[in-house]
Amino acid sequence: MSKLRVAVLGAKGRIGSEAVRAVEAADDLELVAALGRGDKLETLTESGAQVAVELTTPDSVMANLEFCVGHGIHTVVGTTGWTDERLAQLNGWLSASPETGVLIAPNFSIGAVLNMKFAQIAAPYFESVEVIELHHPKKVDAPSGTATRTAQLIASARAEAGAAQAPDATETALDGARGADVDGIPVHSVRLRGLLAHQEVLLGGEGETLTIRHDSLHHSSFMPGILLGARRVVSTPGLTFGLEHFLDLN
Amino acid sequence: MSKLRVAVLGAKGRIGSEAVRAVEAADDLELVAALGRGDKLETLTESGAQVAVELTTPDSVMANLEFCVGHGIHTVVGTTGWTDERLAQLNGWLSASPETGVLIAPNFSIGAVLNMKFAQIAAPYFESVEVIELHHPKKVDAPSGTATRTAQLIASARAEAGAAQAPDATETALDGARGADVDGIPVHSVRLRGLLAHQEVLLGGEGETLTIRHDSLHHSSFMPGILLGARRVVSTPGLTFGLEHFLDLN
Amino acid sequence: MSKLRVAVLGAKGRIGSEAVRAVEAADDLELVAALGRGDKLETLTESGAQVAVELTTPDSVMANLEFCVGHGIHTVVGTTGWTDERLAQLNGWLSASPETGVLIAPNFSIGAVLNMKFAQIAAPYFESVEVIELHHPKKVDAPSGTATRTAQLIASARAEAGAAQAPDATETALDGARGADVDGIPVHSVRLRGLLAHQEVLLGGEGETLTIRHDSLHHSSFMPGILLGARRVVSTPGLTFGLEHFLDLN
Amino acid sequence: MSKLRVAVLGAKGRIGSEAVRAVEAADDLELVAALGRGDKLETLTESGAQVAVELTTPDSVMANLEFCVGHGIHTVVGTTGWTDERLAQLNGWLSASPETGVLIAPNFSIGAVLNMKFAQIAAPYFESVEVIELHHPKKVDAPSGTATRTAQLIASARAEAGAAQAPDATETALDGARGADVDGIPVHSVRLRGLLAHQEVLLGGEGETLTIRHDSLHHSSFMPGILLGARRVVSTPGLTFGLEHFLDLN
Repeated sequence: MSKLRVAVLGAKGRIGSEAVRAVEAADDLELVAALGRGDKLETLTESGAQVAVELTTPDSVMANLEFCVGHGIHTVVGTTGWTDERLAQLNGWLSASPETGVLIAPNFSIGAVLNMKFAQIAAPYFESVEVIELHHPKKVDAPSGTATRTAQLIASARAEAGAAQAPDATETALDGARGADVDGIPVHSVRLRGLLAHQEVLLGGEGETLTIRHDSLHHSSFMPGILLGARRVVSTPGLTFGLEHFLDLN
Repeated sequence: MSKLRVAVLGAKGRIGSEAVRAVEAADDLELVAALGRGDKLETLTESGAQVAVELTTPDSVMANLEFCVGHGIHTVVGTTGWTDERLAQLNGWLSASPETGVLIAPNFSIGAVLNMKFAQIAAPYFESVEVIELHHPKKVDAPSGTATRTAQLIASARAEAGAAQAPDATETALDGARGADVDGIPVHSVRLRGLLAHQEVLLGGEGETLTIRHDSLHHSSFMPGILLGARRVVSTPGLTFGLEHFLDLN
Repeated sequence: MSKLRVAVLGAKGRIGSEAVRAVEAADDLELVAALGRGDKLETLTESGAQVAVELTTPDSVMANLEFCVGHGIHTVVGTTGWTDERLAQLNGWLSASPETGVLIAPNFSIGAVLNMKFAQIAAPYFESVEVIELHHPKKVDAPSGTATRTAQLIASARAEAGAAQAPDATETALDGARGADVDGIPVHSVRLRGLLAHQEVLLGGEGETLTIRHDSLHHSSFMPGILLGARRVVSTPGLTFGLEHFLDLN
Repeated sequence: MSKLRVAVLGAKGRIGSEAVRAVEAADDLELVAALGRGDKLETLTESGAQVAVELTTPDSVMANLEFCVGHGIHTVVGTTGWTDERLAQLNGWLSASPETGVLIAPNFSIGAVLNMKFAQIAAPYFESVEVIELHHPKKVDAPSGTATRTAQLIASARAEAGAAQAPDATETALDGARGADVDGIPVHSVRLRGLLAHQEVLLGGEGETLTIRHDSLHHSSFMPGILLGARRVVSTPGLTFGLEHFLDLN
């Protein structure tokens, strides 16, 4: 079986250099180019890359995508900073190259993506849902972006299903005891030396609870999701937003 | 909105009596009959029951189902002891009454069902999967039936996806340390005073883990699933096996 | 070996009736009296009780203790509502009966007592400590009394040891995200259908975390502590406040 | 306040180099020497070291200790391989230098030490105790040495207190389901990609459970224990075996 020809853009960065190693280590992938800042995009076409993994910066990503899509190179994008305007521009390029696929994923950790997805699926079936996120003490925001997003997805899944508000008889509470309120879902933020990034979704119904917990211990956790993206984007024309669409959820 | 007319068979049993209370407490359901051993099945038709909840014994279930299906009463079945022969007989009755629905569920706990389903969905995306089940010390079998079933579902999901065997460098081990082997999935059984029924599925990949845990604290946990079954079986003709088919998993 | 002769006061109450059963079930204890409201205290002396288990109400406890201590009957007290004034009065009676022992315990759950004690011991050795308490949604206060008390004990152990404040770089936070502040220790309160009473103390240091979790599933969890109290109070003259003093912590 | 003068032996090793940094970063300690293989021990006396941190190999440790103890330099020892013979020899040197202190610790992680100690304290008060240890899949032995040691300490604490065997009604079990038997305590070993080193002690009694969990995420977790050892060994003459003796457990 011939290997899938993969290029990495942003190959000198922390995530990019790990992606280079991960592609090299995969039996079914061949690393054909590893571009850093200033390297010429033509290398992509000369090397015959079928898929590009885009891990640069918001400054560079649009030019890179214009080149890739314009040359029919499928692209997996980890770079952030997506606005409606940028998405519209990208969709324009894609409509001119209808067989090319682009995957943009805010999070390549399969565990994080499944944690969110499972929370969303389960949320309408339980009376109560709360989120606890636990991070290292150098984090500057609380709750984490992932926890806020998870709570929003939970809230909207419950609203859509017509789920009632969670029961809560609290009459007297210390300020903050019941957590932050994100669209009606309580979110609690723990900051503890020794931790990295962890999230727990607790769901409770009559006589039972279901807990879904994700522990992230290293940014190498992005690699399996990036490789999975590379393998699937080649047969998924158009724009896909979110790794969950590449996972079989049935 | 008119209420759904529900009858309970086996209404004097531990689960049945709880089902009676749960139906009575639900705003959209009306309890029209509660039959114990020896009560006449004609009560079902006389009371105008649209759905029957069957919580009797393997001895009674077939006669009850023949009556219900024959009279177009949709049925939710918690009674166990299903063989291929019995299923064939039930399917025969159903083909003669094609608009009637029957749901048979080995487990009505939504948490348990989602725990298994999520384990199955996630299993192919991680390198390692193990199951820990924890129960009260009066339990006579180890692993629990649910844990064995979960491990089998995990193993078959991994096989189907072509997932490699989980890495394990163990060279010297005390007997039993690495758990029981269920189709290649290690299953560990804890027996502890103070516990009831708990199960944890641990999934591990590069730099991250995902844990799905179900805690069952009371058999009242079956009620939301039974009610959900009653509400959905009326619009699901034919035989459905497993509550998971009545949950929206996307 | 002769059995220890035990009486229960408040024997008709929820906890009292369970204490009656627990004493009867213990090989080394003999239930010699079980008094309800209105029963005469003389039964205690007539039955030759060596230990009384006091599980009545704040209205009755002082009269009961005066009688017991006055007659040299050791007493284990679960009744609440202790003020400095009441303690002074009790100590007066005890000084007139120097061989009699009284144990007053705000919590007879050995798990809860050890959870608090271990938190207190460990707290000075870690940079960060937070408390999460999780309860059923009918609870009216947040945080729970036990969590507040635990956080206070942690804070005072850290202050005594000269421990620095826990690191926390949070710059922007949603209201409540970082929990309630109890003497500088963040406490998070989860309210979830399906739960009973649970508490987790999280301690974090460089490269490691220690978590101590107590799950209380039934008030029968008080029985082992009550029996242990009864066995030990007979050889512990004077007033002891808190079950932890009867546990060997070394 | 004058700083405590500390030397590190084995300063080029993985743990040693981290110890060098940790000593330098501590306000109350001064790094006065950092010796690698072949460096002269006289540096210790010339630099005026009050405490030596010994992190070399079983080959070098005895000569280093003879020198240190002979010159009244207190020593904190992380090097392993201690036999009764070696301990006797060390005790001989110490009796000739009665004011010098030596701490030998098989584990400098405060979390691991407290996990073991708390398990040992709590074990007699619960009916059931089991141990789950979870490690990365490259580990060659199961259970881990720490889990085996923990189970042994638990078993001996229970034996000493006359605790009964844990209840277990298991009649039919798959091979290995109930874990390994270490002195009567079930120990379960999980091997999962994404994990490092984790251990959970589960204790269960009537109506409640207590769980003590240690998560080790990096060998930097040894540093607080090494520094604590250095600070305390100077005022603890003679041989101390185990970091737990330097922790205040009351």
